Amino acid sequence: MGRLTAVVLGSAAGGGFPQWNCRCPVCRLAWEGDSRVRARSQASLAASADGDRWVLLNASPDLRAQLAATPQLQPHGGVRGSPIDAVVLTGTEVDQIAGLLHLRERHPFTVYATEATLAILADNTIFGVLADDVVKREAVVLDRPFSVAGMEIELFAAPGKVPLYLEQGEPQTAELSQTNVGVDLRAQGKRLVFVPGAADVTPALRARLENADVAMFDGTLFTDDEMIRNGSGLKTGRRMGHMPIDGEDGSLQALSGLSARRYYIHINNTNPILIDGSPERRKVEAAGFTVAEDGMEIAP
Amino acid sequence: MGRLTAVVLGSAAGGGFPQWNCRCPVCRLAWEGDSRVRARSQASLAASADGDRWVLLNASPDLRAQLAATPQLQPHGGVRGSPIDAVVLTGTEVDQIAGLLHLRERHPFTVYATEATLAILADNTIFGVLADDVVKREAVVLDRPFSVAGMEIELFAAPGKVPLYLEQGEPQTAELSQTNVGVDLRAQGKRLVFVPGAADVTPALRARLENADVAMFDGTLFTDDEMIRNGSGLKTGRRMGHMPIDGEDGSLQALSGLSARRYYIHINNTNPILIDGSPERRKVEAAGFTVAEDGMEIAP
Repeated sequence: MGRLTAVVLGSAAGGGFPQWNCRCPVCRLAWEGDSRVRARSQASLAASADGDRWVLLNASPDLRAQLAATPQLQPHGGVRGSPIDAVVLTGTEVDQIAGLLHLRERHPFTVYATEATLAILADNTIFGVLADDVVKREAVVLDRPFSVAGMEIELFAAPGKVPLYLEQGEPQTAELSQTNVGVDLRAQGKRLVFVPGAADVTPALRARLENADVAMFDGTLFTDDEMIRNGSGLKTGRRMGHMPIDGEDGSLQALSGLSARRYYIHINNTNPILIDGSPERRKVEAAGFTVAEDGMEIAP
Repeated sequence: MGRLTAVVLGSAAGGGFPQWNCRCPVCRLAWEGDSRVRARSQASLAASADGDRWVLLNASPDLRAQLAATPQLQPHGGVRGSPIDAVVLTGTEVDQIAGLLHLRERHPFTVYATEATLAILADNTIFGVLADDVVKREAVVLDRPFSVAGMEIELFAAPGKVPLYLEQGEPQTAELSQTNVGVDLRAQGKRLVFVPGAADVTPALRARLENADVAMFDGTLFTDDEMIRNGSGLKTGRRMGHMPIDGEDGSLQALSGLSARRYYIHINNTNPILIDGSPERRKVEAAGFTVAEDGMEIAP
Protein backbone atom coordinates (compact mmCIF):
# COMPACT_ATOMS: atom_id res chain seq x y z
CA MET A 1 0.00 0.00 0.00
CA GLY A 2 1.26 3.41 -0.96
CA ARG A 3 1.17 6.72 0.76
CA LEU A 4 -0.13 10.06 -0.53
CA THR A 5 2.87 12.11 -1.66
CA ALA A 6 3.17 15.50 -3.28
CA VAL A 7 6.25 16.90 -5.01
CA VAL A 8 6.59 20.66 -5.42
CA LEU A 9 7.49 20.98 -9.11
CA GLY A 10 7.55 24.76 -8.88
CA SER A 11 6.90 27.25 -6.10
CA ALA A 12 7.07 30.68 -7.76
CA ALA A 13 4.29 32.86 -9.11
CA GLY A 14 3.90 33.70 -12.81
CA GLY A 15 7.24 34.62 -14.36
CA GLY A 16 9.22 32.49 -11.92
CA PHE A 17 12.16 33.56 -9.76
CA PRO A 18 14.22 35.32 -10.85
CA GLN A 19 11.92 36.84 -13.46
CA TRP A 20 13.54 37.25 -16.90
CA ASN A 21 13.27 41.06 -17.04
CA CYS A 22 13.44 41.97 -13.35
CA ARG A 23 16.14 43.39 -11.11
CA CYS A 24 14.02 44.14 -8.06
CA PRO A 25 16.00 43.73 -4.82
CA VAL A 26 15.02 40.06 -4.49
CA CYS A 27 15.70 39.12 -8.15
CA ARG A 28 19.03 40.91 -7.95
CA LEU A 29 20.16 38.53 -5.22
CA ALA A 30 19.31 35.61 -7.51
CA TRP A 31 21.11 37.08 -10.55
CA GLU A 32 24.15 37.68 -8.32
CA GLY A 33 24.14 34.12 -6.99
CA ASP A 34 23.51 35.12 -3.37
CA SER A 35 23.23 31.92 -1.32
CA ARG A 36 20.26 33.23 0.67
CA VAL A 37 17.97 32.72 -2.32
CA ARG A 38 17.31 29.78 -4.62
CA ALA A 39 15.83 29.96 -8.12
CA ARG A 40 12.23 28.78 -8.30
CA SER A 41 10.13 27.74 -11.27
CA GLN A 42 6.43 28.44 -11.66
CA ALA A 43 3.96 26.86 -9.27
CA SER A 44 2.82 23.29 -9.81
CA LEU A 45 2.46 20.13 -7.74
CA ALA A 46 2.67 16.47 -8.67
CA ALA A 47 0.65 14.11 -6.46
CA SER A 48 0.52 10.34 -6.21
CA ALA A 49 -1.20 7.81 -4.00
CA ASP A 50 1.09 4.94 -4.95
CA GLY A 51 4.31 6.45 -6.30
CA ASP A 52 3.59 5.00 -9.75
CA ARG A 53 0.75 7.04 -11.23
CA TRP A 54 0.96 10.81 -10.92
CA VAL A 55 -1.41 13.71 -11.29
CA LEU A 56 -0.16 17.23 -11.97
CA LEU A 57 -1.92 20.16 -10.35
CA ASN A 58 -1.46 22.84 -13.01
CA ALA A 59 0.97 22.65 -15.93
CA SER A 60 3.43 25.52 -15.66
CA PRO A 61 5.44 26.98 -18.55
CA ASP A 62 8.50 25.46 -16.82
CA LEU A 63 7.11 21.92 -16.94
CA ARG A 64 9.77 20.49 -19.24
CA ALA A 65 12.57 21.55 -16.88
CA GLN A 66 10.48 20.43 -13.90
CA LEU A 67 10.11 16.94 -15.37
CA ALA A 68 13.84 16.82 -16.09
CA ALA A 69 14.44 17.50 -12.38
CA THR A 70 11.94 14.91 -11.12
CA PRO A 71 12.90 11.24 -11.73
CA GLN A 72 9.48 10.02 -10.51
CA LEU A 73 7.84 11.66 -13.53
CA GLN A 74 10.21 10.32 -16.18
CA PRO A 75 9.37 7.38 -18.45
CA HIS A 76 10.35 4.03 -16.97
CA GLY A 77 9.52 1.39 -19.54
CA GLY A 78 8.71 0.78 -23.20
CA VAL A 79 9.69 3.09 -26.02
CA ARG A 80 7.06 5.70 -25.24
CA GLY A 81 5.30 6.30 -21.93
CA SER A 82 4.97 8.44 -18.84
CA PRO A 83 3.77 7.99 -15.26
CA ILE A 84 1.59 11.12 -15.72
CA ASP A 85 -2.08 10.06 -15.74
CA ALA A 86 -3.77 13.43 -15.52
CA VAL A 87 -3.46 17.19 -15.20
CA VAL A 88 -5.87 19.13 -13.00
CA LEU A 89 -6.16 22.85 -13.76
CA THR A 90 -7.10 25.59 -11.29
CA GLY A 91 -7.53 28.26 -13.97
CA THR A 92 -6.20 29.44 -17.32
CA GLU A 93 -3.47 31.92 -16.45
CA VAL A 94 -0.32 31.31 -18.47
CA ASP A 95 1.41 29.89 -15.40
CA GLN A 96 -1.40 27.35 -14.96
CA ILE A 97 -1.81 26.00 -18.51
CA ALA A 98 1.16 26.80 -20.79
CA GLY A 99 2.88 23.60 -19.67
CA LEU A 100 0.22 21.56 -21.45
CA LEU A 101 2.12 22.47 -24.61
CA HIS A 102 5.10 20.53 -23.22
CA LEU A 103 2.89 17.44 -22.93
CA ARG A 104 2.31 16.98 -26.63
CA GLU A 105 3.74 13.87 -28.34
CA ARG A 106 0.72 11.59 -28.16
CA HIS A 107 0.85 10.38 -24.57
CA PRO A 108 -2.68 9.56 -23.41
CA PHE A 109 -3.74 11.43 -20.27
CA THR A 110 -6.77 13.36 -19.04
CA VAL A 111 -7.15 17.07 -18.39
CA TYR A 112 -9.62 17.75 -15.56
CA ALA A 113 -10.93 21.31 -15.31
CA THR A 114 -14.12 23.30 -15.08
CA GLU A 115 -16.21 23.79 -18.18
CA ALA A 116 -15.16 27.47 -18.27
CA THR A 117 -11.48 26.53 -18.25
CA LEU A 118 -11.91 23.86 -20.93
CA ALA A 119 -13.76 26.39 -23.09
CA ILE A 120 -10.78 28.77 -22.98
CA LEU A 121 -8.44 25.93 -23.94
CA ALA A 122 -10.73 25.03 -26.83
CA ASP A 123 -10.76 28.66 -27.97
CA ASN A 124 -6.98 28.63 -28.30
CA THR A 125 -6.20 26.40 -31.27
CA ILE A 126 -2.59 25.91 -30.21
CA PHE A 127 -3.79 23.48 -27.51
CA GLY A 128 -4.99 21.33 -30.38
CA VAL A 129 -1.47 19.80 -30.27
CA LEU A 130 -3.04 17.67 -27.54
CA ALA A 131 -5.13 15.72 -30.03
CA ASP A 132 -8.67 14.83 -28.95
CA ASP A 133 -8.13 11.18 -29.78
CA VAL A 134 -5.22 11.00 -27.32
CA VAL A 135 -5.81 13.54 -24.55
CA LYS A 136 -9.24 13.50 -22.90
CA ARG A 137 -10.84 16.64 -21.49
CA GLU A 138 -13.13 16.02 -18.52
CA ALA A 139 -15.36 18.86 -17.37
CA VAL A 140 -15.41 18.94 -13.58
CA VAL A 141 -18.37 20.23 -11.57
CA LEU A 142 -17.36 22.28 -8.52
CA ASP A 143 -17.73 20.62 -5.12
CA ARG A 144 -18.29 17.19 -6.67
CA PRO A 145 -15.42 14.72 -6.07
CA PHE A 146 -14.01 12.56 -8.85
CA SER A 147 -11.47 9.73 -8.78
CA VAL A 148 -8.17 9.58 -10.59
CA ALA A 149 -5.09 7.43 -10.03
CA GLY A 150 -6.35 6.23 -6.65
CA MET A 151 -7.04 9.71 -5.33
CA GLU A 152 -10.30 11.55 -4.74
CA ILE A 153 -10.17 15.10 -6.03
CA GLU A 154 -12.62 17.95 -5.66
CA LEU A 155 -12.42 21.42 -7.17
CA PHE A 156 -13.94 24.37 -5.36
CA ALA A 157 -14.27 28.05 -6.19
CA ALA A 158 -11.70 30.38 -4.61
CA PRO A 159 -12.16 34.15 -4.65
CA GLY A 160 -10.24 35.48 -7.64
CA LYS A 161 -10.47 36.90 -11.15
CA VAL A 162 -10.41 35.96 -14.84
CA PRO A 163 -6.97 35.53 -16.46
CA LEU A 164 -5.10 38.69 -17.43
CA TYR A 165 -5.44 38.10 -21.17
CA LEU A 166 -9.24 37.90 -20.90
CA GLU A 167 -9.68 41.02 -18.80
CA GLN A 168 -11.96 43.61 -20.38
CA GLY A 169 -11.83 46.85 -18.42
CA GLU A 170 -11.48 46.58 -14.66
CA PRO A 171 -12.29 42.99 -13.66
CA GLN A 172 -13.97 41.69 -10.53
CA THR A 173 -10.94 40.69 -8.47
CA ALA A 174 -12.47 38.55 -5.74
CA GLU A 175 -15.43 36.80 -7.28
CA LEU A 176 -16.33 33.14 -6.92
CA SER A 177 -16.47 31.46 -10.30
CA GLN A 178 -15.26 28.51 -12.34
CA THR A 179 -12.21 30.46 -13.49
CA ASN A 180 -10.22 30.37 -10.24
CA VAL A 181 -10.46 27.21 -8.18
CA GLY A 182 -8.66 25.29 -5.47
CA VAL A 183 -7.98 21.55 -5.31
CA ASP A 184 -9.00 19.32 -2.42
CA LEU A 185 -7.17 16.02 -2.73
CA ARG A 186 -7.72 12.93 -0.60
CA ALA A 187 -6.15 9.48 -0.45
CA GLN A 188 -5.52 6.91 2.25
CA GLY A 189 -7.25 9.06 4.87
CA LYS A 190 -4.97 12.03 4.19
CA ARG A 191 -5.97 15.34 2.70
CA LEU A 192 -4.08 18.10 0.88
CA VAL A 193 -5.69 21.39 -0.16
CA PHE A 194 -3.98 23.47 -2.86
CA VAL A 195 -5.03 27.10 -3.34
CA PRO A 196 -2.42 28.86 -5.49
CA GLY A 197 -4.58 31.95 -6.00
CA ALA A 198 -7.01 33.50 -3.52
CA ALA A 199 -8.15 37.07 -3.07
CA ASP A 200 -9.80 36.34 0.26
CA VAL A 201 -10.29 33.62 2.86
CA THR A 202 -14.03 33.25 3.04
CA PRO A 203 -15.63 31.25 5.88
CA ALA A 204 -16.22 28.39 3.40
CA LEU A 205 -12.57 28.36 2.36
CA ARG A 206 -11.44 28.51 5.99
CA ALA A 207 -13.74 25.57 6.81
CA ARG A 208 -12.22 23.54 3.99
CA LEU A 209 -8.70 24.24 5.22
CA GLU A 210 -9.68 23.33 8.81
CA ASN A 211 -9.94 19.67 7.88
CA ALA A 212 -6.81 19.41 5.76
CA ASP A 213 -3.57 17.73 6.77
CA VAL A 214 -1.63 19.99 4.44
CA ALA A 215 -2.68 23.42 3.16
CA MET A 216 -0.71 24.99 0.29
CA PHE A 217 -1.78 28.59 -0.09
CA ASP A 218 -1.29 31.66 -2.25
CA GLY A 219 1.93 33.38 -1.15
CA THR A 220 2.18 35.78 -4.09
CA LEU A 221 3.00 39.03 -2.30
CA PHE A 222 4.06 39.78 1.25
CA THR A 223 2.63 43.32 1.14
CA ASP A 224 -0.23 44.35 -1.11
CA ASP A 225 1.69 47.25 -2.71
CA GLU A 226 5.21 45.74 -2.80
CA MET A 227 5.46 45.78 -6.61
CA ILE A 228 4.49 49.46 -6.73
CA ARG A 229 6.91 50.39 -3.94
CA ASN A 230 9.92 48.69 -5.53
CA GLY A 231 9.15 50.03 -9.00
CA SER A 232 8.56 46.66 -10.63
CA GLY A 233 4.87 47.07 -11.37
CA LEU A 234 1.79 49.24 -11.23
CA LYS A 235 -0.64 46.81 -9.64
CA THR A 236 -1.45 45.80 -6.12
CA GLY A 237 -1.74 42.15 -5.24
CA ARG A 238 -5.48 42.52 -4.77
CA ARG A 239 -5.81 43.97 -8.27
CA MET A 240 -4.17 40.74 -9.49
CA GLY A 241 -6.61 38.61 -7.49
CA HIS A 242 -4.13 37.74 -4.73
CA MET A 243 -4.48 38.69 -1.06
CA PRO A 244 -1.22 39.69 0.61
CA ILE A 245 0.44 37.61 3.34
CA ASP A 246 0.94 40.44 5.82
CA GLY A 247 -1.40 42.91 7.43
CA GLU A 248 -4.74 42.76 9.18
CA ASP A 249 -6.52 41.39 6.14
CA GLY A 250 -3.61 39.20 5.06
CA SER A 251 -3.46 35.42 4.81
CA LEU A 252 -1.11 35.00 7.77
CA GLN A 253 -3.88 36.30 9.99
CA ALA A 254 -6.71 34.61 8.08
CA LEU A 255 -5.06 31.17 8.29
CA SER A 256 -3.92 31.41 11.91
CA GLY A 257 -4.85 28.61 14.27
CA LEU A 258 -5.28 25.92 11.58
CA SER A 259 -4.06 22.47 12.50
CA ALA A 260 -2.97 21.77 8.89
CA ARG A 261 0.70 21.94 8.00
CA ARG A 262 0.71 25.22 6.07
CA TYR A 263 2.91 26.12 3.09
CA TYR A 264 3.13 29.27 1.02
CA ILE A 265 3.39 28.55 -2.71
CA HIS A 266 3.00 30.68 -5.89
CA ILE A 267 5.48 33.22 -4.50
CA ASN A 268 6.18 36.31 -6.58
CA ASN A 269 9.76 37.26 -7.42
CA THR A 270 9.40 40.49 -5.38
CA ASN A 271 8.38 38.71 -2.17
CA PRO A 272 11.04 38.98 0.55
CA ILE A 273 9.99 35.64 2.09
CA LEU A 274 12.16 34.20 -0.72
CA ILE A 275 15.24 35.38 1.23
CA ASP A 276 16.52 33.00 3.91
CA GLY A 277 16.61 34.79 7.23
CA SER A 278 14.79 37.95 6.11
CA PRO A 279 12.44 39.53 8.68
CA GLU A 280 9.49 38.58 6.47
CA ARG A 281 10.65 34.94 6.20
CA ARG A 282 11.16 34.81 9.96
CA LYS A 283 7.68 36.23 10.50
CA VAL A 284 5.91 33.57 8.40
CA GLU A 285 8.03 30.80 9.90
CA ALA A 286 7.30 32.02 13.43
CA ALA A 287 3.60 31.80 12.53
CA GLY A 288 4.09 28.14 11.59
CA PHE A 289 4.25 28.42 7.77
CA THR A 290 6.83 26.78 5.53
CA VAL A 291 7.93 28.57 2.34
CA ALA A 292 7.69 25.99 -0.44
CA GLU A 293 10.75 25.21 -2.55
CA ASP A 294 11.09 23.41 -5.86
CA GLY A 295 11.72 19.71 -5.37
CA MET A 296 10.26 19.53 -1.85
CA GLU A 297 8.47 16.25 -1.09
CA ILE A 298 5.45 16.50 1.15
CA ALA A 299 3.69 13.50 2.68
CA PRO A 300 0.43 14.67 4.26
CA MET B 1 32.51 48.33 -33.36
CA GLY B 2 30.88 45.03 -32.61
CA ARG B 3 30.82 41.77 -34.40
CA LEU B 4 27.87 39.65 -35.46
CA THR B 5 27.42 36.86 -32.91
CA ALA B 6 24.86 34.12 -32.55
CA VAL B 7 24.24 32.02 -29.46
CA VAL B 8 22.52 28.66 -29.82
CA LEU B 9 19.83 28.85 -27.13
CA GLY B 10 18.50 25.45 -28.09
CA SER B 11 19.41 22.87 -30.70
CA ALA B 12 16.74 20.15 -30.44
CA ALA B 13 13.56 19.68 -32.42
CA GLY B 14 10.08 19.97 -30.88
CA GLY B 15 9.91 18.13 -27.57
CA GLY B 16 13.61 18.63 -26.82
CA PHE B 17 16.15 15.99 -25.91
CA PRO B 18 15.48 13.84 -24.05
CA GLN B 19 11.77 14.05 -24.80
CA TRP B 20 9.54 13.82 -21.71
CA ASN B 21 7.74 10.60 -22.72
CA CYS B 22 10.39 8.86 -24.83
CA ARG B 23 12.78 6.00 -24.24
CA CYS B 24 13.99 5.49 -27.78
CA PRO B 25 17.62 4.30 -27.90
CA VAL B 26 18.97 7.87 -28.02
CA CYS B 27 16.72 9.26 -25.25
CA ARG B 28 17.58 6.26 -23.09
CA LEU B 29 21.24 7.29 -23.15
CA ALA B 30 20.23 10.74 -21.89
CA TRP B 31 17.97 9.40 -19.12
CA GLU B 32 20.83 7.10 -18.05
CA GLY B 33 23.36 9.94 -17.97
CA ASP B 34 25.58 8.49 -20.69
CA SER B 35 28.42 10.95 -21.32
CA ARG B 36 28.18 10.55 -25.10
CA VAL B 37 25.01 12.63 -25.18
CA ARG B 38 24.07 16.02 -23.76
CA ALA B 39 20.55 17.27 -23.05
CA ARG B 40 19.31 19.84 -25.56
CA SER B 41 16.47 22.30 -25.38
CA GLN B 42 14.25 23.28 -28.29
CA ALA B 43 15.76 25.14 -31.25
CA SER B 44 16.29 28.89 -31.03
CA LEU B 45 19.09 31.36 -31.74
CA ALA B 46 19.94 34.72 -30.20
CA ALA B 47 21.80 37.11 -32.50
CA SER B 48 23.49 40.44 -31.87
CA ALA B 49 25.56 42.88 -33.89
CA ASP B 50 26.97 44.71 -30.87
CA GLY B 51 26.66 42.35 -27.89
CA ASP B 52 24.17 44.71 -26.24
CA ARG B 53 20.93 44.40 -28.18
CA TRP B 54 19.70 40.93 -29.04
CA VAL B 55 17.19 39.42 -31.40
CA LEU B 56 15.74 35.96 -30.82
CA LEU B 57 15.08 33.72 -33.80
CA ASN B 58 12.04 31.79 -32.58
CA ALA B 59 10.83 31.61 -28.99
CA SER B 60 10.93 28.02 -27.82
CA PRO B 61 8.89 26.56 -24.96
CA ASP B 62 12.23 26.25 -23.10
CA LEU B 63 12.99 29.97 -23.33
CA ARG B 64 12.89 30.68 -19.59
CA ALA B 65 15.55 28.05 -18.91
CA GLN B 66 17.50 29.21 -21.97
CA LEU B 67 17.60 32.79 -20.64
CA ALA B 68 18.67 31.52 -17.24
CA ALA B 69 21.64 29.82 -18.97
CA THR B 70 22.63 32.86 -21.06
CA PRO B 71 24.06 35.85 -19.12
CA GLN B 72 24.06 38.05 -22.25
CA LEU B 73 20.25 37.94 -22.28
CA GLN B 74 19.69 38.76 -18.61
CA PRO B 75 18.70 42.23 -17.36
CA HIS B 76 21.69 44.46 -16.63
CA GLY B 77 20.35 47.74 -15.26
CA GLY B 78 17.32 49.44 -13.76
CA VAL B 79 14.53 47.65 -11.92
CA ARG B 80 12.96 46.23 -15.07
CA GLY B 81 14.59 45.68 -18.46
CA SER B 82 16.06 43.20 -20.91
CA PRO B 83 18.59 43.26 -23.75
CA ILE B 84 16.00 41.50 -25.95
CA ASP B 85 14.82 43.93 -28.63
CA ALA B 86 12.88 41.61 -30.90
CA VAL B 87 11.73 38.09 -31.68
CA VAL B 88 11.66 36.86 -35.28
CA LEU B 89 9.39 33.88 -35.94
CA THR B 90 9.84 31.28 -38.67
CA GLY B 91 6.39 29.73 -38.15
CA THR B 92 3.81 28.88 -35.52
CA GLU B 93 4.68 25.38 -34.38
CA VAL B 94 4.68 25.08 -30.60
CA ASP B 95 8.48 24.93 -30.58
CA GLN B 96 8.64 28.23 -32.48
CA ILE B 97 6.17 30.39 -30.55
CA ALA B 98 5.31 29.00 -27.11
CA GLY B 99 8.27 30.87 -25.60
CA LEU B 100 6.52 34.16 -26.30
CA LEU B 101 4.45 33.30 -23.24
CA HIS B 102 7.64 33.48 -21.16
CA LEU B 103 8.18 37.06 -22.39
CA ARG B 104 5.12 38.55 -20.71
CA GLU B 105 5.69 41.10 -17.89
CA ARG B 106 5.44 44.31 -19.88
CA HIS B 107 8.88 44.48 -21.49
CA PRO B 108 8.63 46.40 -24.78
CA PHE B 109 9.90 44.47 -27.79
CA THR B 110 8.80 43.71 -31.33
CA VAL B 111 7.61 40.44 -32.86
CA TYR B 112 8.55 40.19 -36.55
CA ALA B 113 6.71 37.55 -38.55
CA THR B 114 4.69 37.04 -41.69
CA GLU B 115 1.09 38.17 -41.78
CA ALA B 116 -0.03 34.52 -41.73
CA THR B 117 1.97 33.83 -38.58
CA LEU B 118 0.73 36.97 -36.82
CA ALA B 119 -2.86 36.01 -37.69
CA ILE B 120 -2.45 32.67 -35.93
CA LEU B 121 -1.03 34.42 -32.85
CA ALA B 122 -3.98 36.82 -32.90
CA ASP B 123 -6.41 33.91 -33.12
CA ASN B 124 -5.01 32.45 -29.90
CA THR B 125 -6.12 34.78 -27.13
CA ILE B 126 -3.49 33.49 -24.71
CA PHE B 127 -0.86 35.50 -26.60
CA GLY B 128 -2.81 38.57 -25.49
CA VAL B 129 -0.57 38.45 -22.39
CA LEU B 130 1.83 40.33 -24.66
CA ALA B 131 -0.28 43.48 -24.50
CA ASP B 132 -0.59 45.47 -27.73
CA ASP B 133 0.49 48.68 -26.01
CA VAL B 134 3.80 47.07 -24.99
CA VAL B 135 4.71 44.43 -27.58
CA LYS B 136 4.57 45.49 -31.22
CA ARG B 137 3.72 43.06 -34.00
CA GLU B 138 5.37 43.85 -37.34
CA ALA B 139 4.15 42.00 -40.41
CA VAL B 140 7.14 41.07 -42.57
CA VAL B 141 6.93 40.68 -46.33
CA LEU B 142 8.97 37.77 -47.67
CA ASP B 143 12.21 38.62 -49.49
CA ARG B 144 12.13 42.23 -48.30
CA PRO B 145 14.86 43.09 -45.73
CA PHE B 146 14.14 45.04 -42.57
CA SER B 147 16.47 46.48 -39.93
CA VAL B 148 16.51 45.67 -36.26
CA ALA B 149 19.19 46.17 -33.60
CA GLY B 150 21.84 46.99 -36.19
CA MET B 151 21.14 43.90 -38.29
CA GLU B 152 19.46 43.48 -41.63
CA ILE B 153 17.02 40.58 -41.63
CA GLU B 154 15.09 38.99 -44.46
CA LEU B 155 12.54 36.21 -44.26
CA PHE B 156 12.11 33.80 -47.16
CA ALA B 157 9.80 30.87 -47.82
CA ALA B 158 11.23 27.41 -47.16
CA PRO B 159 9.45 24.26 -48.37
CA GLY B 160 7.35 22.99 -45.46
CA LYS B 161 3.85 22.62 -44.04
CA VAL B 162 1.32 24.28 -41.76
CA PRO B 163 1.66 23.64 -38.01
CA LEU B 164 0.41 20.29 -36.71
CA TYR B 165 -2.51 21.81 -34.76
CA LEU B 166 -3.83 23.49 -37.92
CA GLU B 167 -3.62 20.43 -40.16
CA GLN B 168 -6.93 19.44 -41.72
CA GLY B 169 -6.64 16.09 -43.42
CA GLU B 170 -3.37 15.32 -45.18
CA PRO B 171 -1.43 18.58 -45.53
CA GLN B 172 0.87 19.69 -48.30
CA THR B 173 4.25 18.86 -46.79
CA ALA B 174 6.64 20.76 -49.04
CA GLU B 175 4.83 23.87 -50.15
CA LEU B 176 6.24 27.38 -50.22
CA SER B 177 4.15 29.71 -48.09
CA GLN B 178 4.25 32.28 -45.32
CA THR B 179 3.86 29.58 -42.69
CA ASN B 180 7.36 28.10 -42.87
CA VAL B 181 10.22 30.51 -43.46
CA GLY B 182 13.95 30.85 -43.08
CA VAL B 183 15.91 33.82 -41.75
CA ASP B 184 18.69 35.56 -43.67
CA LEU B 185 20.60 37.77 -41.25
CA ARG B 186 23.34 40.24 -42.17
CA ALA B 187 25.57 42.62 -40.21
CA GLN B 188 29.08 43.99 -40.60
CA GLY B 189 29.50 42.20 -43.91
CA LYS B 190 28.73 38.80 -42.40
CA ARG B 191 25.76 36.64 -43.13
CA LEU B 192 24.00 33.85 -41.25
CA VAL B 193 21.12 31.85 -42.73
CA PHE B 194 18.84 29.92 -40.35
CA VAL B 195 16.50 27.27 -41.75
CA PRO B 196 15.19 25.14 -38.88
CA GLY B 197 12.58 23.41 -41.04
CA ALA B 198 12.87 22.47 -44.71
CA ALA B 199 11.26 19.69 -46.71
CA ASP B 200 13.53 20.24 -49.68
CA VAL B 201 16.51 22.25 -50.91
CA THR B 202 15.18 24.07 -53.93
CA PRO B 203 17.57 25.85 -56.30
CA ALA B 204 16.50 29.18 -54.75
CA LEU B 205 17.28 27.93 -51.23
CA ARG B 206 20.60 26.52 -52.36
CA ALA B 207 21.46 29.87 -53.98
CA ARG B 208 20.71 31.68 -50.75
CA LEU B 209 22.94 29.33 -48.77
CA GLU B 210 25.76 29.73 -51.33
CA ASN B 211 26.39 33.27 -50.18
CA ALA B 212 26.18 32.69 -46.43
CA ASP B 213 29.09 32.61 -44.01
CA VAL B 214 27.12 30.36 -41.68
CA ALA B 215 24.23 28.07 -42.61
CA MET B 216 22.17 26.52 -39.81
CA PHE B 217 19.92 23.88 -41.30
CA ASP B 218 17.13 21.46 -40.40
CA GLY B 219 18.71 18.37 -38.81
CA THR B 220 15.47 16.82 -37.55
CA LEU B 221 15.93 13.19 -38.65
CA PHE B 222 18.93 11.29 -39.93
CA THR B 223 16.77 8.78 -41.81
CA ASP B 224 13.29 9.56 -43.10
CA ASP B 225 11.67 6.58 -41.35
CA GLU B 226 13.74 6.51 -38.14
CA MET B 227 10.77 7.22 -35.84
CA ILE B 228 8.77 4.42 -37.37
CA ARG B 229 11.66 1.98 -37.19
CA ASN B 230 12.40 2.58 -33.51
CA GLY B 231 8.72 2.51 -32.53
CA SER B 232 8.54 6.10 -31.31
CA GLY B 233 6.20 7.44 -33.96
CA LEU B 234 4.05 6.74 -37.00
CA LYS B 235 5.28 9.52 -39.27
CA THR B 236 8.16 9.93 -41.66
CA GLY B 237 10.24 13.08 -41.52
CA ARG B 238 8.83 14.16 -44.86
CA ARG B 239 5.28 13.82 -43.53
CA MET B 240 6.34 16.29 -40.79
CA GLY B 241 7.76 18.69 -43.38
CA HIS B 242 11.40 17.84 -42.71
CA MET B 243 13.80 16.28 -45.23
CA PRO B 244 16.17 13.67 -43.77
CA ILE B 245 19.93 14.21 -43.47
CA ASP B 246 20.96 10.95 -45.09
CA GLY B 247 20.24 9.38 -48.44
CA GLU B 248 20.25 10.45 -52.03
CA ASP B 249 17.60 13.09 -51.48
CA GLY B 250 18.90 14.08 -48.04
CA SER B 251 20.31 17.42 -46.91
CA LEU B 252 23.87 16.14 -46.57
CA GLN B 253 23.91 15.63 -50.31
CA ALA B 254 21.86 18.71 -51.15
CA LEU B 255 24.13 21.01 -49.15
CA SER B 256 27.44 19.53 -50.27
CA GLY B 257 30.08 21.84 -51.64
CA LEU B 258 28.83 24.99 -49.92
CA SER B 259 31.52 27.34 -48.66
CA ALA B 260 29.39 28.32 -45.63
CA ARG B 261 30.20 26.85 -42.24
CA ARG B 262 27.32 24.41 -41.93
CA TYR B 263 25.51 23.40 -38.72
CA TYR B 264 22.66 21.02 -38.12
CA ILE B 265 20.08 22.37 -35.68
CA HIS B 266 16.49 21.38 -34.73
CA ILE B 267 17.63 17.82 -34.10
CA ASN B 268 15.00 15.27 -33.10
CA ASN B 269 15.49 13.16 -29.98
CA THR B 270 15.64 9.99 -32.14
CA ASN B 271 18.49 11.25 -34.32
CA PRO B 272 21.74 9.29 -33.77
CA ILE B 273 23.88 12.33 -34.67
CA LEU B 274 23.17 13.34 -31.05
CA ILE B 275 25.58 10.59 -29.94
CA ASP B 276 29.27 11.56 -29.84
CA GLY B 277 31.24 9.18 -32.02
CA SER B 278 28.23 7.39 -33.56
CA PRO B 279 28.63 6.37 -37.22
CA GLU B 280 25.97 8.92 -38.17
CA ARG B 281 27.75 11.71 -36.26
CA ARG B 282 31.04 10.77 -37.90
CA LYS B 283 29.37 10.83 -41.29
CA VAL B 284 28.01 14.38 -40.94
CA GLU B 285 31.27 15.60 -39.43
CA ALA B 286 33.27 14.02 -42.24
CA ALA B 287 31.06 15.95 -44.67
CA GLY B 288 32.01 19.19 -42.92
CA PHE B 289 28.92 19.75 -40.76
CA THR B 290 28.88 20.66 -37.08
CA VAL B 291 26.09 19.35 -34.85
CA ALA B 292 24.81 22.38 -32.91
CA GLU B 293 24.75 22.29 -29.12
CA ASP B 294 22.99 24.49 -26.61
CA GLY B 295 25.18 27.39 -25.52
CA MET B 296 27.43 27.32 -28.59
CA GLU B 297 28.61 30.78 -29.69
CA ILE B 298 28.99 31.29 -33.39
CA ALA B 299 30.70 34.30 -34.96
CA PRO B 300 30.05 34.21 -38.71
